[in-house]
Amino acid sequence: MVNLNEMGQKACVSKYELQKLSTEVKNKALMAVADALCNEKDKIIAANVIDVENGEKNGMAPGMVDRLRLDDKRIAAMAEGLRQVAELPDPVGEVIEEFERPNGLKISKCRVPMGVIGIIYESRPNVTADAFSLTFKSGNATILKGGSDAIESNKAITEVIRDCLSKEGINPDAIQLIADTDREVTKSFMKLDEYVDVLIPRGSAGLIRSVVTNSTIPVIETGTGNCHIYVDKDADLKKALPIIINAKTQRIGVCNAAESLVIHEDINKSFLPELNKAFKEKNVEVHADMPSMSLMTGAIPATEEDFGREYLDYKISVKTVSDVEEAIEHINKYNTGHSEAIITENADTAERFLNGVDAACVYVNASTRFTDGFEFGFGAEIGISTQKLHARGPMGLRELTSYKYKIIGNGQIRS
Amino acid sequence: MVNLNEMGQKACVSKYELQKLSTEVKNKALMAVADALCNEKDKIIAANVIDVENGEKNGMAPGMVDRLRLDDKRIAAMAEGLRQVAELPDPVGEVIEEFERPNGLKISKCRVPMGVIGIIYESRPNVTADAFSLTFKSGNATILKGGSDAIESNKAITEVIRDCLSKEGINPDAIQLIADTDREVTKSFMKLDEYVDVLIPRGSAGLIRSVVTNSTIPVIETGTGNCHIYVDKDADLKKALPIIINAKTQRIGVCNAAESLVIHEDINKSFLPELNKAFKEKNVEVHADMPSMSLMTGAIPATEEDFGREYLDYKISVKTVSDVEEAIEHINKYNTGHSEAIITENADTAERFLNGVDAACVYVNASTRFTDGFEFGFGAEIGISTQKLHARGPMGLRELTSYKYKIIGNGQIRS
Repeated sequence: MVNLNEMGQKACVSKYELQKLSTEVKNKALMAVADALCNEKDKIIAANVIDVENGEKNGMAPGMVDRLRLDDKRIAAMAEGLRQVAELPDPVGEVIEEFERPNGLKISKCRVPMGVIGIIYESRPNVTADAFSLTFKSGNATILKGGSDAIESNKAITEVIRDCLSKEGINPDAIQLIADTDREVTKSFMKLDEYVDVLIPRGSAGLIRSVVTNSTIPVIETGTGNCHIYVDKDADLKKALPIIINAKTQRIGVCNAAESLVIHEDINKSFLPELNKAFKEKNVEVHADMPSMSLMTGAIPATEEDFGREYLDYKISVKTVSDVEEAIEHINKYNTGHSEAIITENADTAERFLNGVDAACVYVNASTRFTDGFEFGFGAEIGISTQKLHARGPMGLRELTSYKYKIIGNGQIRS
Repeated sequence: MVNLNEMGQKACVSKYELQKLSTEVKNKALMAVADALCNEKDKIIAANVIDVENGEKNGMAPGMVDRLRLDDKRIAAMAEGLRQVAELPDPVGEVIEEFERPNGLKISKCRVPMGVIGIIYESRPNVTADAFSLTFKSGNATILKGGSDAIESNKAITEVIRDCLSKEGINPDAIQLIADTDREVTKSFMKLDEYVDVLIPRGSAGLIRSVVTNSTIPVIETGTGNCHIYVDKDADLKKALPIIINAKTQRIGVCNAAESLVIHEDINKSFLPELNKAFKEKNVEVHADMPSMSLMTGAIPATEEDFGREYLDYKISVKTVSDVEEAIEHINKYNTGHSEAIITENADTAERFLNGVDAACVYVNASTRFTDGFEFGFGAEIGISTQKLHARGPMGLRELTSYKYKIIGNGQIRS
């Protein structure tokens, strides 16, 4: 069994060293790690073959096996991701604010690394390299707990990164992998608040719930997206149709895909039959409420449960409302605080929607699929936060930092 | 037994109404509540008398009884606090950042209220009014769980505020008090993440630990301060002495008071005897390490435990180091991430200390006692955060907000 306390202590030694590294040294190391991953690709693929074989032996679904599999191209993409992060601006050291108090104290609020970031993930082994690049560039040590399905791949990738860091003269404990698939170890990891400053779960709603329930480390919730598109009575329907089809079908398994359509009753007759045709072409199953049932042939009656579901599938629910206020109320009742859109040409209605809907990202006349660190121009992304504390929406390098107040005096005491 | 789910639902109805209130309406309500507290002072004092009598009956320490007691002057001070918050700038609606993407999407990052803020506190009944003023001005609904010792006072204050809000045409559920002293209720409150966006504990280290361990709501840790002052070999000792005496003795029971002195070995002989004299005048008990024992007559030998203690008393520990790096290492090992100071005239040493010490506030040549929302110019304070997620150091109105991305498009879809 792994010694989590020892890992925590090592991470804390490493974090102080990482905080002092210059941007140049960090970038050079990221480029070296990218090269190392390419050079050691045979070793990584050999480890990955074991994971893939185990997966197939255990009856893993073919889609999952495909996500797990690494090849030359995917390793090259991982390396490319590292090189891109090397080119991003370093958030550490930025002076966010400066002010002077009447007593002469000079106060500056400066961006600093978080310290130690824990990441628990279920997804593909490339997350191991991605998570390292972002936490490292932002000056943090990381402790990773990947999915047991990818354990051999994750171990190999971590080993390559650690060896490379050592060669660069950097403490390899900047990245540590919990190479134990016991669930009790994962639970103990969530209690390691003495050493870990923030814990980011990436994966299914079940995983995220488990982390929120069990963690004593501050958590950033990510991921779940029950995203809505509201088509207002003043919508330009020529914009509405492609936006809905894009948000629903361009990629179905992602958190920023649309899961529910909210439609104004004044335009349902003129819009839903045409939309239904487009849905049929894309094999989208419609779960419609009473007023829209007759307008969408082949639709299934929507249950209360449908409105709360993140399908991640070729399925969509439809809800009819009588005005924007009802749309806002419906969305605020069922959404997960991720991404919501309105289609309207009415600036006043758009404004009410923007202000009234409680979500990380609220769109006017655009697809919800843009909620993404790259699309926002952050250059990278560790996840999409759906909570309100610390960071909301796409999280890039800056969201992996905290701040510190530096106060310069000349003998001030408090009276 | 109170129905926490119902309270949560009511808070969520209220939060959407509060988010829409103009600054003017909020300020008018704060002024009205201030007047109401003064007008209803007899009612509040009558309730407080019950708490005070119960406290005395149960053998409460006289100092605690004094903290609990309300009189005309203290109620007037509470009202004055509300009026001051009314005069502070409203953080809600501030555009933090604006940018446009190559595809024409216009993205703005706007400050919004958190939603529902839970506060668990043990301290004086005036916290009830303080917490309301800050959460209300920042557009949040609040659910309060005060200490059982002050239950009658808290109920009376909350009632006065709720009645006044109703008269102002504002949903009184902007403030709700959990009027149940059962500990199980407090534990259930900590699981109310369906309705509560952030939970702030204010009180003893034990209370804060209990919240961190049990809460499924995101928590902001506040309070504990094992603060150090490091006197460097290049210190101006004429600055060092008053700063240490101020930080240690100006007010002993507060989190930003100094609890430990770290001294460079090159100057201990020239400084400690003089400092010891000043400590004696203030009745400060010294817990000294081996090298400083002989220089501070009457000192008690420091144990390992002393270095980790927040005395909140006329006591201080003393640790000798051979350079600034050892000072930083010692502080990072024992501190609580609150406030740390260096006394030095050497700019390079100061810089190393500022960067190397891991704390919310790091001082050069000033007393740690300045870590405070008012002293920082925030105009008010809900607490001092000692964690790195979301807010660090003094938390004013701005720290009670989150943000939202508003994205304006003209039909953009993702390819």
